[in-house]
Amino acid sequence: MSDDVRNVLTALSSMTEHWQPHRLTSINDYDLKVVKILGEFVWHTHPDTDELFLVLSGELTIQLRDRDVVLGPQDVFVVPRGVEHCPRATAEVQALLIEPQGTVNTGDAGGDLTSQLRELDAP
Amino acid sequence: MSDDVRNVLTALSSMTEHWQPHRLTSINDYDLKVVKILGEFVWHTHPDTDELFLVLSGELTIQLRDRDVVLGPQDVFVVPRGVEHCPRATAEVQALLIEPQGTVNTGDAGGDLTSQLRELDAP
Repeated sequence: MSDDVRNVLTALSSMTEHWQPHRLTSINDYDLKVVKILGEFVWHTHPDTDELFLVLSGELTIQLRDRDVVLGPQDVFVVPRGVEHCPRATAEVQALLIEPQGTVNTGDAGGDLTSQLRELDAP
Repeated sequence: MSDDVRNVLTALSSMTEHWQPHRLTSINDYDLKVVKILGEFVWHTHPDTDELFLVLSGELTIQLRDRDVVLGPQDVFVVPRGVEHCPRATAEVQALLIEPQGTVNTGDAGGDLTSQLRELDAP
């Protein structure tokens, strides 16, 4: 495999922590990230950007203030910019995220779950 | 399922033609597209943008002028802007693409394989 090819499943298998997005690769000034999710996150908003979730395994609930969006494998949902949301998973979820570089996972909320973007080890 | 949730596999199952990217959703001014690939495309360049391929099934070869990049399921590769490339698949490949809105599949090459971006039917 070329050293500029990344494999989604290999990347996820190297990750142990939840709520810690790792950068898989970038396209222009956007990042494609992988993340493992378990439990309930924090209510937050990204005032300046949409955020894309693509679920790879498990069932992810994106709580919005007026409804829950339930995502299964291969489901894609975009949280529009400025919309308050709180992800929740009762069993581990593996997902892809797409968002502009510099997007912080907890958005405007901050707090203990705020994670700096992690880099994967070299393949 | 909410009407703003898209499923990657459902989308692909509704598509019959090759080399015809369909827009699954958008994040800001970027599109997430699904595409079926079979045969050899045309050598082309995107002078102004990177292009991301994520293979879902099958084996996709991205021919570059100095090497071939071979991608299997869950492999991700970004063709940097300005780099001439030509995708090829000897059996059908299903893939995701990420690129800025308005990116044309044949880039600077044009020709018979040029496809306007297709929209999926409503879910």
